Amino acid sequence: MKAAILGVGTELLTGLIRDYNAYFLAQRLVERGVLPQFIIFAPDQIEKIVSALQFIMQEEEIKLVIVSGGLGPTEDDLTREAVARAFNRNLVFNSEAWNKIQFFYRQLRNVEPPENNKKQAFIPQGAGILYNERGTAPGFKLQVEDKNIFVIPGVPREAEFFWSLIEKELPQEEENFYRSPVFKFCGIGESNLAEEVRPFLAYLPSSFNIAFLPNYGEVWLYVYSSNYSLEQKELALLFLDKVAHHLDRFFFTPYGDTLEEAVGNMMKEKGLKLGVAESCTGGLVANRITDVAGSSQYFERGYVVYSNEAKKEDLEVPEEILKEKGAVSEEVARFLAQSVRRKGKVDLGLGITGIAGPGGGSEGKPVGLVYIALASEDDIIVQKFHFSGDRLMNKRFASQSALTMVFQCLKEKFDL
Amino acid sequence: MKAAILGVGTELLTGLIRDYNAYFLAQRLVERGVLPQFIIFAPDQIEKIVSALQFIMQEEEIKLVIVSGGLGPTEDDLTREAVARAFNRNLVFNSEAWNKIQFFYRQLRNVEPPENNKKQAFIPQGAGILYNERGTAPGFKLQVEDKNIFVIPGVPREAEFFWSLIEKELPQEEENFYRSPVFKFCGIGESNLAEEVRPFLAYLPSSFNIAFLPNYGEVWLYVYSSNYSLEQKELALLFLDKVAHHLDRFFFTPYGDTLEEAVGNMMKEKGLKLGVAESCTGGLVANRITDVAGSSQYFERGYVVYSNEAKKEDLEVPEEILKEKGAVSEEVARFLAQSVRRKGKVDLGLGITGIAGPGGGSEGKPVGLVYIALASEDDIIVQKFHFSGDRLMNKRFASQSALTMVFQCLKEKFDL
Repeated sequence: MKAAILGVGTELLTGLIRDYNAYFLAQRLVERGVLPQFIIFAPDQIEKIVSALQFIMQEEEIKLVIVSGGLGPTEDDLTREAVARAFNRNLVFNSEAWNKIQFFYRQLRNVEPPENNKKQAFIPQGAGILYNERGTAPGFKLQVEDKNIFVIPGVPREAEFFWSLIEKELPQEEENFYRSPVFKFCGIGESNLAEEVRPFLAYLPSSFNIAFLPNYGEVWLYVYSSNYSLEQKELALLFLDKVAHHLDRFFFTPYGDTLEEAVGNMMKEKGLKLGVAESCTGGLVANRITDVAGSSQYFERGYVVYSNEAKKEDLEVPEEILKEKGAVSEEVARFLAQSVRRKGKVDLGLGITGIAGPGGGSEGKPVGLVYIALASEDDIIVQKFHFSGDRLMNKRFASQSALTMVFQCLKEKFDL
Repeated sequence: MKAAILGVGTELLTGLIRDYNAYFLAQRLVERGVLPQFIIFAPDQIEKIVSALQFIMQEEEIKLVIVSGGLGPTEDDLTREAVARAFNRNLVFNSEAWNKIQFFYRQLRNVEPPENNKKQAFIPQGAGILYNERGTAPGFKLQVEDKNIFVIPGVPREAEFFWSLIEKELPQEEENFYRSPVFKFCGIGESNLAEEVRPFLAYLPSSFNIAFLPNYGEVWLYVYSSNYSLEQKELALLFLDKVAHHLDRFFFTPYGDTLEEAVGNMMKEKGLKLGVAESCTGGLVANRITDVAGSSQYFERGYVVYSNEAKKEDLEVPEEILKEKGAVSEEVARFLAQSVRRKGKVDLGLGITGIAGPGGGSEGKPVGLVYIALASEDDIIVQKFHFSGDRLMNKRFASQSALTMVFQCLKEKFDL
């Protein structure tokens, strides 16, 4: 089955907002074997939305249409009107929907809904209403010719909820397009990975394509095909297994996990605990680790020692070291890692100090210089990095390198 | 002038890659007063690309079309063929382009170009070639009817380079579209903001539209017009000023700042310092604050007290309180805020404790329950929240609420 996604919102066309919904919906559709043929963004103008819908209606292969956005309570929310016009229907007031909106306001916000929310209770004649459990705007669905059209709100967490409703109405077992699981690697660059993979290419059936995708210090590898036999699909998966086995040191997941999830799973498996002391990453490492559900099982505590006082008072970095070597030094990274390991009584202590920029650099210690130390029971490893991005990129790459060091240590020391 | 952007690449339709080029190009176009009317993503299939181009050609207002992607050397790069077919032209070999590709390989990679790169030297008859300084694929431009069509590579840094060429060919002084600065509000919902704005709408010239954009606990407000006089533009800006003045308690920037930047600027202005003790947000608040360049001027330190031991040892939360009230309680939030304020010797101490989920909830303390305390010299404010998202959303909204509390405190107490 083929689909189209129409995102409505002038903000998508002016570069004010970077699309998330179409990206998210496309991923979910492909997982269900439904391939989007077009993604279109149209502004908050009735004629433009109508025009995009008419274009989509002409595409014979498309059987599923998801329209996202423009269902809010304000004047610039025009998707209801546009859909009604495109399919020549009236908008009718749905009192059940209005009840739900009122309930939402009274229950969760303890106030009466503003009058302008009432427009959200109008839906095109003949459409089926889809109730919103995460906001006020109901969605709706309608069938026009041979196409199923779902119209859902644009707020990302609401759109995600509506996907769960749409998903239930998809037919089972769509098999036109296959993309393998994404095999993720860290600590190796794209070119080197490609070189290592080359000798294995003979095992990949020619009906499959291979893709390498560098992604913020990781490289993602997958294969895909639009025309394959089941046997070829199995061979393609075997090829990926061979590659993963060969590159085991760098390979962290075929399950879509983030690096922080993969590291977390390894720590849980071995019953290990981790503490983090960060300066230049400013809490990003702790934040990534605690993005993982259940991370309290292995993440004990973190320190964001931004000032020198915090480094001295909380993690016992000696005054002399700060004076002689500077806050950004291998020695300070060592102290941070060892102190957090001792204070948290944890197996692994991570210490990070560096210059995220744009200010704070000097000739000997340029912006992007970062020291990362990882202390374990019998050992401490320190690595020096020099990143060349802007502040956010330097933070991001430093956090990625820190997690990669933890990953490599777990692989090597703990037989994982 | 109105434009359309066509992004070509199956990876954009399978959710493997989140679009960057269209987002980037839209921002640049709007800065030049050119408004994209449609953004379309089409897969690497000739008929689909042709079909999208035909749709765009029917739109009378559109005078500029940028097609990005599908100019690579491999089999699935079909944009050249599709453009030629859509406009009924032959593809002709351009020996100058082939020379440049050969030069690129010999000079930069020290090898002969692979034979399949030769297809990159074919462009539609009558098109003007655009040389690529950052890769092998040349772009090209052609005029069809009243539309200028630019076809450029999809690699982001190459697309950025080609924008510099396109920009030179735009007419000067485009003034058909104007978008005002974005006025950002926190601590007020979209509907309530709209209610508050309504009495002022009489001041907004009818040639202007108004947009409300809810954005993770913020609401963004701006006005835009495609047909306005200079006087009307001034009146529209006056309207925004009136609204901002009326809603001063919630209004944090007209300059595109993030909330953490706005709060940082306020703290710098008053020479104030901040410390943060977080449990359920796991470092996210510190991370957001330190995303701002120069934050070391006002951010002193942070604690991520994930375990009860950390809460006791680092921030002196009494054992009895943890036992009697539980780690997620108003009392613990107070201790966290007051202890970090005292230990960091800072003006404001923020303490956050809650249940991010999905596990850890109970009947009395459900997932999403969060207490946030803000301690200042003579006062401590505690707020209780109940968020209903998933783990990441709960962290995100808790961090947003914490920053909003800091913002409101600075407004009220420090005369900002």
